[in-house]
Amino acid sequence: MPASYLSYVGIRVRDLERSLRFYTATLGMKEVARGDNTATGGGLYVLLQDPWSEQRLELNWYPPESRFGGPYVPGEALDHIAFRVADLPPFLEKLRRKGVEFTDGSADHELADGTRVVYVQDPDGNALEVYDRPGPIPSGPLEGY
Amino acid sequence: MPASYLSYVGIRVRDLERSLRFYTATLGMKEVARGDNTATGGGLYVLLQDPWSEQRLELNWYPPESRFGGPYVPGEALDHIAFRVADLPPFLEKLRRKGVEFTDGSADHELADGTRVVYVQDPDGNALEVYDRPGPIPSGPLEGY
Repeated sequence: MPASYLSYVGIRVRDLERSLRFYTATLGMKEVARGDNTATGGGLYVLLQDPWSEQRLELNWYPPESRFGGPYVPGEALDHIAFRVADLPPFLEKLRRKGVEFTDGSADHELADGTRVVYVQDPDGNALEVYDRPGPIPSGPLEGY
Repeated sequence: MPASYLSYVGIRVRDLERSLRFYTATLGMKEVARGDNTATGGGLYVLLQDPWSEQRLELNWYPPESRFGGPYVPGEALDHIAFRVADLPPFLEKLRRKGVEFTDGSADHELADGTRVVYVQDPDGNALEVYDRPGPIPSGPLEGY
């Protein structure tokens, strides 16, 4: 048994239902738990898990009266959230149809190994990296990118 | 095969070696990949994975001349990074010995189910939630918290 393990990364969202729809309906994650700390000055939180990669992401929403409910400045600590996709062009088309904001494309790039990387935005304007790699998504455990 | 999956969450760090030491030596994560986009205006990145939970975290560092290398304001988008620990008191003692900064304790709390939650800081001042729960860490796949 380990002394500790990384359980999840939590992001703050400004509209919980909007972000929940985005990360589940558009990006395929599943809700696995939720809780409510508002009675003790905290917020609402929903734990999402990806059914394929098992990676987790927590959405945190704070009411204005919470000590964590002040103005939302995205900042630099959250650099980006990365989704690997099976095939980039149709996936980007789906995101466009759903009204997802694309960045200006200046950071989009292709790596020497054929990985294609495009940046879009989540509902709070956070950078989402979507990338594909040559060949199918492996069925085994995640290894590297 | 899924159309997409959550691959990892990336945070920006101001000192790559310092954060790498923190997340590996202190928190038990392992480096699984790294890359260098500095030639094309990006930065250095190291992908970490937890050997127990398999959850992933990418550290991103940008040189000052990168368009992503501007002033670092943590902001609110990254709410917190959560580590479950087997037993909170000795783990907190280890963190203290290693010089980890603790927050003021005002957000620390205990839930009705016995979960104990304490907040400390990573090297860039980001909130780390460390929590334990009654009973041992389960050996199977992650479920809920």
